Amino acid sequence: MKVPYRDFDKLVSYFRKVPGIGERGALRIALFLTTTDPKRGRSIAKALLNVIDNVQRCSECNNLSFSERCWICEDPQRDRSVVMVVETVFDLLVMEDAGYKGLYHVVAEVLPSSKRIGDRVKTKALDSLIKRLNGGIKEVILAFPYTVRGEALTRFFRENLPSGVLVTRLARGIPVGGEMEFLDPVTLGLALQRRERV
Amino acid sequence: MKVPYRDFDKLVSYFRKVPGIGERGALRIALFLTTTDPKRGRSIAKALLNVIDNVQRCSECNNLSFSERCWICEDPQRDRSVVMVVETVFDLLVMEDAGYKGLYHVVAEVLPSSKRIGDRVKTKALDSLIKRLNGGIKEVILAFPYTVRGEALTRFFRENLPSGVLVTRLARGIPVGGEMEFLDPVTLGLALQRRERV
Repeated sequence: MKVPYRDFDKLVSYFRKVPGIGERGALRIALFLTTTDPKRGRSIAKALLNVIDNVQRCSECNNLSFSERCWICEDPQRDRSVVMVVETVFDLLVMEDAGYKGLYHVVAEVLPSSKRIGDRVKTKALDSLIKRLNGGIKEVILAFPYTVRGEALTRFFRENLPSGVLVTRLARGIPVGGEMEFLDPVTLGLALQRRERV
Repeated sequence: MKVPYRDFDKLVSYFRKVPGIGERGALRIALFLTTTDPKRGRSIAKALLNVIDNVQRCSECNNLSFSERCWICEDPQRDRSVVMVVETVFDLLVMEDAGYKGLYHVVAEVLPSSKRIGDRVKTKALDSLIKRLNGGIKEVILAFPYTVRGEALTRFFRENLPSGVLVTRLARGIPVGGEMEFLDPVTLGLALQRRERV
């Protein structure tokens, strides 16, 4: 499915490279923004350039920010004794919705661009995290996904963080709404092993 | 799930309005294009403005075009005795993939922005189609979806096209890969009624 105009096709192929946008999705977005609603298309283009020109990373936690420190590091209400290490800004926002009130440390460049987080990125994140540990931080929560990639990150941080600080990870078990018949044996085995008194 | 920066949030809300992009999708796209890969973000913004400035509709068939007539109307190889009426440019591209070799007539503004195609749009499309019927066109194929909206469009065109031209519609029946147990009774009843000798 292809529009044989070079400029239009280029636009579609750009959208195609965004994670989560498929071939038909890219075409649909390009058609919508250029022809169904070009006014919105113009607004998006301008808003995009404006954000790209002004966005930066928080010097403290590597979160998305529009100034030296992000809205979380600037917030006097947050619990400064806990730092949660998350892979991406998206994961940080997910944990915000879950009601977490401590600080964060973001490892990756906003979204994981590949399955593997490179050694350079990991080491940089570890070094900057260790630098923060002087300031009264008592606990580091590792909030990586329960996947091969996430487990590798958990192991890396657990092995390389200094022994003086408490290092924890998110509980594993059956999720809310998790019907038994759809859960995998590893999750079920772990949930059985870690069963709780009721 | 929200980033509390007005400019960023505006960008997310613009993407949110594009059909097919959900709340999380809009946030993911905005994060990716501004922070994970701002180079791609800039390219998309520029490509978008470039296409919006140059795109137009084919004066003949209302297809997407970058000149007076679209690539299909300009193509001397197409069968000029058949016109297929489609709702959107997206549907036109779908029929191109299916191997159709005639001409088209596009009814809506690229993508259906609402469930109902307005009378003004329908009437405009009908009038411009009737004007084209002088030029040796023998058949008009109505290729609307088999939905309430599509059936209304099929009825409108069938009732208002001049009687001199053959008006057909796409066959209805069981689709490729359509397991009986997942098909609805209307489709099955129709397929039974129109059964073919083998």
